Amino acid sequence: MSSPEGFRDLTPLITPRSVAVVGASASAGKLGHTILKNILDAGFAGPVVPVNPRADAILGRPCAKSLDDLPDPVDLAVVIIPAVAVPEAIAACGRRGIPAAVVITGGFAESGEEGARLQAALTEAAARHGVRLLGPNCQGINNPHHGLCASWPLLTARGALAVVSQSGTVGAALMDWAAEDGLGVSCFAALGNRAVVDEADLIAALGRDPHTRCIALYLEGIKDPAKFAAAARGCPVPLVALKPGRTPRGRAAAESHTKSLAGDDAIYAGFFRQHGVHRADDVEALYDAARALAYLPRPRGRRLLIVTSSGGCGVLAMDAASVYGIETPPPPPAMAEGLRAFLPPHCIIGNPLDLTGDATAAWYRRVAELAAPHYDAIAPIFGDPIPGAADAVEAPPTPCVICLGGGDVERAERRRLHARGIPVFPTPERGMRALAALLPPTGVAGSRFTVPG
Amino acid sequence: MSSPEGFRDLTPLITPRSVAVVGASASAGKLGHTILKNILDAGFAGPVVPVNPRADAILGRPCAKSLDDLPDPVDLAVVIIPAVAVPEAIAACGRRGIPAAVVITGGFAESGEEGARLQAALTEAAARHGVRLLGPNCQGINNPHHGLCASWPLLTARGALAVVSQSGTVGAALMDWAAEDGLGVSCFAALGNRAVVDEADLIAALGRDPHTRCIALYLEGIKDPAKFAAAARGCPVPLVALKPGRTPRGRAAAESHTKSLAGDDAIYAGFFRQHGVHRADDVEALYDAARALAYLPRPRGRRLLIVTSSGGCGVLAMDAASVYGIETPPPPPAMAEGLRAFLPPHCIIGNPLDLTGDATAAWYRRVAELAAPHYDAIAPIFGDPIPGAADAVEAPPTPCVICLGGGDVERAERRRLHARGIPVFPTPERGMRALAALLPPTGVAGSRFTVPG
Repeated sequence: MSSPEGFRDLTPLITPRSVAVVGASASAGKLGHTILKNILDAGFAGPVVPVNPRADAILGRPCAKSLDDLPDPVDLAVVIIPAVAVPEAIAACGRRGIPAAVVITGGFAESGEEGARLQAALTEAAARHGVRLLGPNCQGINNPHHGLCASWPLLTARGALAVVSQSGTVGAALMDWAAEDGLGVSCFAALGNRAVVDEADLIAALGRDPHTRCIALYLEGIKDPAKFAAAARGCPVPLVALKPGRTPRGRAAAESHTKSLAGDDAIYAGFFRQHGVHRADDVEALYDAARALAYLPRPRGRRLLIVTSSGGCGVLAMDAASVYGIETPPPPPAMAEGLRAFLPPHCIIGNPLDLTGDATAAWYRRVAELAAPHYDAIAPIFGDPIPGAADAVEAPPTPCVICLGGGDVERAERRRLHARGIPVFPTPERGMRALAALLPPTGVAGSRFTVPG
Repeated sequence: MSSPEGFRDLTPLITPRSVAVVGASASAGKLGHTILKNILDAGFAGPVVPVNPRADAILGRPCAKSLDDLPDPVDLAVVIIPAVAVPEAIAACGRRGIPAAVVITGGFAESGEEGARLQAALTEAAARHGVRLLGPNCQGINNPHHGLCASWPLLTARGALAVVSQSGTVGAALMDWAAEDGLGVSCFAALGNRAVVDEADLIAALGRDPHTRCIALYLEGIKDPAKFAAAARGCPVPLVALKPGRTPRGRAAAESHTKSLAGDDAIYAGFFRQHGVHRADDVEALYDAARALAYLPRPRGRRLLIVTSSGGCGVLAMDAASVYGIETPPPPPAMAEGLRAFLPPHCIIGNPLDLTGDATAAWYRRVAELAAPHYDAIAPIFGDPIPGAADAVEAPPTPCVICLGGGDVERAERRRLHARGIPVFPTPERGMRALAALLPPTGVAGSRFTVPG
C-alpha cells in the first residue's frame, strides 16, 4: 500500500477498475445524484454500482443495498452520505477489501469539535483497514484519461496538466479554463481535509502518471514538509504552487478555512525555492505557469525575441520581460541582415521586432526560422487578425504565443493553436509571466539550465 | 472648432452625419475594403460614399472619383491611401469643407525622415483648413452607439466604456473583450501619431458623450501635459490609464515605437496621481478597472464584505484585499445575529463569510441585504455552480462579483450578470484589483469620498 519512500500507492484512487457510489441519489440536484451522473456521463468503462438502501436502481444502474452487499470487488468508493455515517462506511470499505475511497461529505474537522471527533474516527478506520482515503470535505477526483469524473462540474477534456488543490473551486476553475481552451487536464484531485491522502502522496503518484507533464498545486499549508520535500525531489515533472496567506489577514482567513496553521509566508517561499517548486502569485498565474510548464519545451537559456504586429504590445512585453529577468538582446548582425532581406523597410528591426500591422503569418514563420540559432525563446504577438497564425508557430525556439485584438480571426487561430497543444496567452504581461516560469531562477548554482551571458 | 479651453470640437469625428471612405477598395482583404465594409456592416445610418477614381461602385455604393467630386457635404473622411498622397487629400477635405478626417495610413513620423516630412505637410494642411484629424498611422474610430465602425475588427457591442489608445491592438483587445462579455464600449479612438487630435481633445469630447461613463487610456507618452491636465480636471467621468515604459528597456522600446520621448516613469506616476487618473499595471488591469469604473457605483467608503461558497477563494480575496488596502471588518454583532438566524451552523460567520458549497442564490441575496447598512462594497464569490446567482446581486453595497469554477451554470449566470450591466471578474485577485480602482487613494485630503474609521 505504501512505497518504500512512504508514499501511498494511489492506483485504485486515480485509475480504479470499478467504482461504488455510496449515497447515490435518484433526486436530481442532490450531490449523490450529480456525482453518479457525472461518472456515467464521463464514460467510465468499468462497473459503477450505486449504493442506496432504499432504491432498486438509479440512472439505470442496479443498486447495492450496502457496501457489504456489493456483488463484485470494487476499487474505489465515492462517499456522499451524512458525516456521522462516514467512519462506519470506511470501515465497511475496509472489511469489503475496497482499497480506496473519496469522501465528498463535509462536516468534519473544518466544522468544530464534533466534526473533529468524526474525522479522528474516520482516519482511524481508514488506517485500520489500509483504505487510501481522499478528503473528507472535498470536491472529489477527476481523471479524464480514465473516464472518471467523481467530481463536479462534468469536465472531460484530456490534457497534460494535473491539478491538486485544497480548494475545490480553484481546481475546478483551472479544469474549466483548460477545457474551454481545449487543452484539458490529466487529473484533478481535491485534497479536502487531508485526513489520510495528502499532497505528497498525489505528487508521487501523478509524477509517475504517463499523461501528466506538470502538477499545479493550490495549498493553504503543507501537511508534512519532510514528505513533501521527498515527493518534490523525486518528481520527474515540474511543480507550480499557489499558496495564499501572504498577508496577515489572508493568513488568518486561511487558518480559519482549514483549521490548521498556515505558517509564515517567508518560510514557505524559501521551502518552495529550495525544492524547485515554482510559486504563482494568483489563480491566473497558477493556470498560466502550469500550462506553460505542461505544454512548452523548456528553453535552453534566457534569451527571448519579441516579434509583434503591434508596436504597443511589443513595448508592454518588453516592460514585463524586464520585470521577470528575461533577456532581450537585439538580433545579431547576421540575423538582422536576413530579416532585412525579406521585410519591408517600415518594419523596425530590433527587439521587439515590429512587423507592423502589415504582418503576415509567413513573416512570423520566417522570423522564427532566423531566430532559432540565436534565441532560446520567441514571443510572437499576434495583435491583429492574422490568418494562418497558428501555422507560423514551431519550436525551437520555445514559443510563447500571445494573441489579442484580432477578433474572429484570432479566435479561430487560438483554437487551432490550442488544438496543437500550444498554449496561447491573452496579454503580453501574462505571456511573459508564464515564460518566466519556464526559466530557472537566475544565479542558481548547479542548475540544469544553461544561463548564457 | 476649438472650445474656449482649447479642446477641438470632435462632433464630426465621433458622431458624423455622413462619411467618405477615401481609398475604398473593391478587393476583399485590402484595408480600404475592410473599412468600408465594416462601416456598412455596423449599420451607419447616414450617407457613406466610397472615393475611388477607378471604380463606379463598391459594395453596392456609387463611388465619387475624388473628394472634389463628392455629391453632398460630408462630415468625416476616412483615409486609406498611400502616405505620399495623404497631405493633398487633407487639403482637399479642407477645400470641400469636410471638418474631420481619420487617417489610417501609416508611413509618417513613425517611419523615418521622409515620413516625418509627410507628417509635417499633413499637419500643416489640416491646420490651414481646420480639419480635425485623427492619426495618421492609426486603427481608426469605432462608435457603436452611432453605427460607426471606421476601424477593425468589426465590433458593434454598445456600452459605457470609452477607449482611447496609442496602440490599435490594445484598444481592439479591450473592445473585443467588452463585446465578448456583452458589456460593449461607448467609443474607441486610436490615436496613432497624434498629428492633430490628441488624447486631451478626446478626453474633453468623450467626457461629454452621453454614453460614456469611464475613459480607458493606453498612452506611451502624453503629448501636451498642460492640456491633458486641463482635460482631466474638467472630465466628469473617471479616467484610467495604462502607461508602459516603467523599465528602462520598456521605455527604450516605447521611444522606438512612437519616435517620441517616453519620459521618466516616476514623473508620470505623480502626474496621474495629481490629476486623479487611476493607473493600471497591465492590459487586463486596464480592462478590469475601466469596466468597474464604467459599470459599478462608487462605494461610499472602503469597507468590504467577502462572501463566498469557496473557502479557498475567500482566502485569496482576503490576501488581495489586504494588498490593495481594502478594509475587511468582521460583521458587527447585530448583523452576525441576522446571519445566524438563517444560515446553517457549518457556515463560517466572519469576513470572509464562508457559505460553503451548500450556498444558494437566496443566501447570497439575504447576506447582501443584511450587509447594506454596514458595508460599502460586497464581493460575492460564486465558486460553485449556483443557479440564480445573477438575481442575488443588487447595489448597494457596490457589488464586486467574482465567478469561477462553476462550469456551464457559471457561464449562464455570468452572461445574465453582464446583460444587467454588472461586470464579473474571473478570479478573486482580479476582482479585488478592480474594486480598488473604485476607491480613493488612502489619506488624500479633500477627497470626495468618505473614508470611514
